[in-house]
Amino acid sequence: MLTASQIDRWLREDIGHHDVTNSVGGDTHGRLVAKEAGVAAGIDAAAAVFDHLGVEADRTVTDGDRIDAGDVVVQTSGSAQATLRAERVAVNLAGHASGVATRTREAVDRAETVANGVRVAGTRKTTPGLRGVEKRAVVAGGGDSHRLDLSHMVMIKENHIAEMGLETAVKRFRERVSFATQIEVEAESAEQARRAATAGADIVLLDNMPPAETAEAVDTLADDTPDVLTEASGGITLDDVTDYAATGIDIISMGSLTHSAPSLDFSFRTGE
Amino acid sequence: MLTASQIDRWLREDIGHHDVTNSVGGDTHGRLVAKEAGVAAGIDAAAAVFDHLGVEADRTVTDGDRIDAGDVVVQTSGSAQATLRAERVAVNLAGHASGVATRTREAVDRAETVANGVRVAGTRKTTPGLRGVEKRAVVAGGGDSHRLDLSHMVMIKENHIAEMGLETAVKRFRERVSFATQIEVEAESAEQARRAATAGADIVLLDNMPPAETAEAVDTLADDTPDVLTEASGGITLDDVTDYAATGIDIISMGSLTHSAPSLDFSFRTGE
Amino acid sequence: MLTASQIDRWLREDIGHHDVTNSVGGDTHGRLVAKEAGVAAGIDAAAAVFDHLGVEADRTVTDGDRIDAGDVVVQTSGSAQATLRAERVAVNLAGHASGVATRTREAVDRAETVANGVRVAGTRKTTPGLRGVEKRAVVAGGGDSHRLDLSHMVMIKENHIAEMGLETAVKRFRERVSFATQIEVEAESAEQARRAATAGADIVLLDNMPPAETAEAVDTLADDTPDVLTEASGGITLDDVTDYAATGIDIISMGSLTHSAPSLDFSFRTGE
Amino acid sequence: MLTASQIDRWLREDIGHHDVTNSVGGDTHGRLVAKEAGVAAGIDAAAAVFDHLGVEADRTVTDGDRIDAGDVVVQTSGSAQATLRAERVAVNLAGHASGVATRTREAVDRAETVANGVRVAGTRKTTPGLRGVEKRAVVAGGGDSHRLDLSHMVMIKENHIAEMGLETAVKRFRERVSFATQIEVEAESAEQARRAATAGADIVLLDNMPPAETAEAVDTLADDTPDVLTEASGGITLDDVTDYAATGIDIISMGSLTHSAPSLDFSFRTGE
Amino acid sequence: MLTASQIDRWLREDIGHHDVTNSVGGDTHGRLVAKEAGVAAGIDAAAAVFDHLGVEADRTVTDGDRIDAGDVVVQTSGSAQATLRAERVAVNLAGHASGVATRTREAVDRAETVANGVRVAGTRKTTPGLRGVEKRAVVAGGGDSHRLDLSHMVMIKENHIAEMGLETAVKRFRERVSFATQIEVEAESAEQARRAATAGADIVLLDNMPPAETAEAVDTLADDTPDVLTEASGGITLDDVTDYAATGIDIISMGSLTHSAPSLDFSFRTGE
Amino acid sequence: MLTASQIDRWLREDIGHHDVTNSVGGDTHGRLVAKEAGVAAGIDAAAAVFDHLGVEADRTVTDGDRIDAGDVVVQTSGSAQATLRAERVAVNLAGHASGVATRTREAVDRAETVANGVRVAGTRKTTPGLRGVEKRAVVAGGGDSHRLDLSHMVMIKENHIAEMGLETAVKRFRERVSFATQIEVEAESAEQARRAATAGADIVLLDNMPPAETAEAVDTLADDTPDVLTEASGGITLDDVTDYAATGIDIISMGSLTHSAPSLDFSFRTGE
Repeated sequence: MLTASQIDRWLREDIGHHDVTNSVGGDTHGRLVAKEAGVAAGIDAAAAVFDHLGVEADRTVTDGDRIDAGDVVVQTSGSAQATLRAERVAVNLAGHASGVATRTREAVDRAETVANGVRVAGTRKTTPGLRGVEKRAVVAGGGDSHRLDLSHMVMIKENHIAEMGLETAVKRFRERVSFATQIEVEAESAEQARRAATAGADIVLLDNMPPAETAEAVDTLADDTPDVLTEASGGITLDDVTDYAATGIDIISMGSLTHSAPSLDFSFRTGE
Repeated sequence: MLTASQIDRWLREDIGHHDVTNSVGGDTHGRLVAKEAGVAAGIDAAAAVFDHLGVEADRTVTDGDRIDAGDVVVQTSGSAQATLRAERVAVNLAGHASGVATRTREAVDRAETVANGVRVAGTRKTTPGLRGVEKRAVVAGGGDSHRLDLSHMVMIKENHIAEMGLETAVKRFRERVSFATQIEVEAESAEQARRAATAGADIVLLDNMPPAETAEAVDTLADDTPDVLTEASGGITLDDVTDYAATGIDIISMGSLTHSAPSLDFSFRTGE
Repeated sequence: MLTASQIDRWLREDIGHHDVTNSVGGDTHGRLVAKEAGVAAGIDAAAAVFDHLGVEADRTVTDGDRIDAGDVVVQTSGSAQATLRAERVAVNLAGHASGVATRTREAVDRAETVANGVRVAGTRKTTPGLRGVEKRAVVAGGGDSHRLDLSHMVMIKENHIAEMGLETAVKRFRERVSFATQIEVEAESAEQARRAATAGADIVLLDNMPPAETAEAVDTLADDTPDVLTEASGGITLDDVTDYAATGIDIISMGSLTHSAPSLDFSFRTGE
Repeated sequence: MLTASQIDRWLREDIGHHDVTNSVGGDTHGRLVAKEAGVAAGIDAAAAVFDHLGVEADRTVTDGDRIDAGDVVVQTSGSAQATLRAERVAVNLAGHASGVATRTREAVDRAETVANGVRVAGTRKTTPGLRGVEKRAVVAGGGDSHRLDLSHMVMIKENHIAEMGLETAVKRFRERVSFATQIEVEAESAEQARRAATAGADIVLLDNMPPAETAEAVDTLADDTPDVLTEASGGITLDDVTDYAATGIDIISMGSLTHSAPSLDFSFRTGE
Repeated sequence: MLTASQIDRWLREDIGHHDVTNSVGGDTHGRLVAKEAGVAAGIDAAAAVFDHLGVEADRTVTDGDRIDAGDVVVQTSGSAQATLRAERVAVNLAGHASGVATRTREAVDRAETVANGVRVAGTRKTTPGLRGVEKRAVVAGGGDSHRLDLSHMVMIKENHIAEMGLETAVKRFRERVSFATQIEVEAESAEQARRAATAGADIVLLDNMPPAETAEAVDTLADDTPDVLTEASGGITLDDVTDYAATGIDIISMGSLTHSAPSLDFSFRTGE
Repeated sequence: MLTASQIDRWLREDIGHHDVTNSVGGDTHGRLVAKEAGVAAGIDAAAAVFDHLGVEADRTVTDGDRIDAGDVVVQTSGSAQATLRAERVAVNLAGHASGVATRTREAVDRAETVANGVRVAGTRKTTPGLRGVEKRAVVAGGGDSHRLDLSHMVMIKENHIAEMGLETAVKRFRERVSFATQIEVEAESAEQARRAATAGADIVLLDNMPPAETAEAVDTLADDTPDVLTEASGGITLDDVTDYAATGIDIISMGSLTHSAPSLDFSFRTGE
């Protein structure tokens, strides 16, 4: 959900103090149109920008829908001046979010060619100010949002392990955090992964391991601690997502879904 | 320049209501380190995030510097809790901005292989909330920031031409806007470009024209109205930027510099 | 963590446009002092208010510490005008948060007289604007923060069950949400609780059931689905928290921890 | 009056980045219902939360009305998703404000059993961020809002008296503040109270005096300076409010009205 | 007191997205210097702008001091880039506030030539966003701030009188508002003024009456209700302020102090 | 364009925590009426304040229209309480903006008596928080908005020239800034002006020169560099604007248009 304050800031950032070219009277109709195929996301957000300025905006697709070049995703009706003011921010939002969704869909589709049910997840490597928009776009693309903020799930990292020892760290954080919060441990080796799972981690992250090593670690864990989820992470891209999917891992997380997805091309057209 | 309010929002978005893993005492040192080669940008912004939480942050490179994998770009010193809270937002900012700068540098370098002095420029297709960060990253990469907001330069578009006629539109907007504001006209054809230049446009945009047609239009304009700048725009990418640079055009603008540049990989490391 | 923007708003709300009584020169020392015994919370927050106005503030206790009447919890040093401006907001924060922590400690202590390891948890019934402050105060009092916001955990309620059926609802939400997010089902009867646990809920909430009925439901679930956590909720107070603790339930959640805890009395004194 | 920015912040705080359980289509009706008897307050505020998200909200009671368990106070109609998003914040607001009003009403009713026209007033001991909501709730409960912020009325305290002497302090502040602003002096003894009244205070605060001493001071002041109002303050509760009311004091102020009133229980129900 | 958020907004408004002329390194000293004689105000505010960007700023005069052309009012020391960024906003604040103070001083001085102790007051006709700055500037100029916001004092106007009758209106509002809040009645005639004073108004406003009629009304009120303050208001300027002062009125309020005072000229100079 | 956040802040600043006099029921009509002749500006802004509180507001004039005493500029219809809350901020905005427009119109009219086509421009000497409102008011009065913020146009000043030399400064900034951004040089003498124009400045500012010296400099520049615009600036007022207009200068900029224009008098009247 976007807030009025966010939209205010984004419009003000784009418009500046005196936008003479938008000083037009009357009403107009408009259409937000995809110029290439992909997966729609950010459509609610784009519509909300028009709505914030009093322009009626009807969504004709839903986040997660596949769209083709030429598809209209939002139809607008209202003040021409307000429509022109909202246009650029709306296009930028829809393009960015749909780019994330499209990239995610591609990763999910590739992963599913070799493994049923593997989850492709986002990370906290999101664009500052757009956490919610990007997480919802990952979900629209068939991905898993992963933890939404630092408070959503405990991630025990190297520095905690160095300070307290792995088993103590898991125990301490279990005591400190809510039952509503899961605990994941970042493991640098298969042995550390095994210890983390045994110590009571809900999820074990296999960090920066090559696929072969990942597969081995997953196998060991599957035998010993079948209820513990496994996650692979660290520079995984569209090129090697299938290699990781083939390891039997439960979750593949990819920062590139949000920080490196190219925008999907949209344009906004006014007139009948 | 980032404001305190922006940084507040970004930290709050990432941290949530209760970040137990950051509840550590004492002080720590940290280093923001590049994991791949590129062009640095957003370094001031990343440092400002630490500074906002009272952590001393010294920049060791300047926006626009070329950096290699392993290069430290910011060194921090201060409260461990505050350092851990700032880390993710700082990495995300530096990675995003440096990604934009690196992509821009690549485009500029390619263009300059065939044309001296051609300008590669950004657009208003920026990520909502990051207009300033991205424009400054384009400049760090050797690009031209283009207009910073809607009020910075008048862009006369199809709808204005349809409503008023091209010549009248140029005349009207010249009367309405400040002498400090330039006027650019979006032309759909070489003929329209010629009329725009003659009518008094400061810059003529050749919109979505193939390189050959662009070259032809540029030649005509160079003869008739040598003081008028020419800009090519519309889906230009790294692949065809040299084709456009070769046309003699003054400015090549590329939305992909900001909306589709992959992030540059950074990590943040604490300890001695 | 409080943001600069929050503190700004709170100070402005309290001070108004022209606070003549604070127009004093020079520096002063101050002490935030407890006037009754309880559990400290909000101490970081109170110190942050002074710090925001440039007054040095040193905490002499830590959130969660038991304090007695007369105990100093923060010592300040700096501009007299700034100290007087910060004082009221700081006292109000510390008093409110410590009130929540003290009430929580009392509930936890009572529950632990009859059941080892039962968790006493807060709810989303917090004061608007103070979610983080109150959740951290619950934790300082030995309680469990429960879900921090709507996105932290899925709570399947009557309306979802009515719409989709219980089993389908659990299945659908499991598909839709991240592996990082747990699923709790609100059950109106022991039978519904059993079905929820079998369907795969992580936690089952026994809503508004008397202790005896709660105990019965807990027993059944303990046999059939021992890994599923159980929570009792619905108007539970200090008076009947032991009755619920005695049922074998895992979690007792109490809105009154945050929405009805009386403030702990503090005063702020200046001068050596 | 709540602002759009406040409501934005409260909703965002409660909802987080991805609230999957609220992803429902269609429209719904809802009712905000009291679950116990008390005095209504915050009803406008609760309605404003729904209204902010485009849900029609009609108040069926007015702030200050006595309500019984089962009474509907707001009826809503609109998008089911928006209704579910607004619900928790609206309930928390109405519960908190009505709790303050109910506690105030009880104090006023008790005081009036022994003294006609005595005023029971709030203080600046309010919850940060809710000054206006709580002050209006005190008024809804039949109480007096007292000064709304530091700039509303001058309160001369110990430190001013120590610095300037009582008579000089009154004189100085009378010169410095507007005719629109009254001056109250905090007196530690009957003698100090007498001097303050004689020096020209509009109101004299008898601080932390037992009822008997208060009565004596009031009598003296009534004879000498009948136009000066008298206020008793300092840890007064429901238990001793009548003792103070019986002293002939004009105003009894109680921090506990706002900082320690238990919430009034409300629930929100959807469906016809 | 300015907040960090206000200063953020003002700087951002002035600077825009890419201020290349401020991209200078090193440190610098600066001086805010008066270019004409007047009364200083807004000096704290100007200093706060520099301080917000980490530039040390020492005030060398105090609000209310008379200053001459050439007088330095603030000295700065710190980053040259930050100094240049802060400069314009600081100058604009000091110039505006000192202009208000200087105009107020002139009005007060003129009034005092004919009447000792008459108060010259501001109104609510202030510049949106600058209520506090302007009210404090009025006080710096020797004026009276009058009510700071709508909640500070009750002003009974024509529409209330039309609806309820004068006497009832006074009675009703006395019941509704705090003892801390005074009540003023806007009177259109001497007769209405008399009735208002008798009904219990604390202050009576003689609205838009010529001096002679004002004098007559003041005389009547002085006899009948000597404790009631009188205020003249309605388009009073420097030209006729003495005519009103001579009537014996207690308060003369002038919107022009804040909405029409010319700025006082300041410049900012850097270098040794 | 005003944002919702701005209007929120302005209303809150004016209203405070408890505005009892606005607690009226029912609907009302209102009219914003000019009380003196001038040029309308800020009419959209005033209407937006009513609209923000749900009151329908129809503009009956357009920014830039000449208005007479008695002219209605906005008509409102809606909740009486909301209308009364919006009234003061709306009047203050319209009065301030129309004052700026009226003063600008006067300057423009005077200048045009001696020179056709000379532009009278505003500066960055605007009221903090009102940059956009005041710039648009200057335009409504027939003036030129000049640069809207620091990023809009490069202004090379003494300190740059001292550091780099004039010619180098122009060259460096031309390389650094966008083609969309013009470059102006502040010249202290006719000789420096000539060098600046020759070096490639788009505009040359003749700073603080008397009219005769200005005329001489303009003549020289007109011969040598006819395409370079010339601007006169520095304490120019209504009294000497014609002297400068007569010099042949292209642009006369006057800080007093925004920082010293008296407000235009408006009142707001309710009832049929």
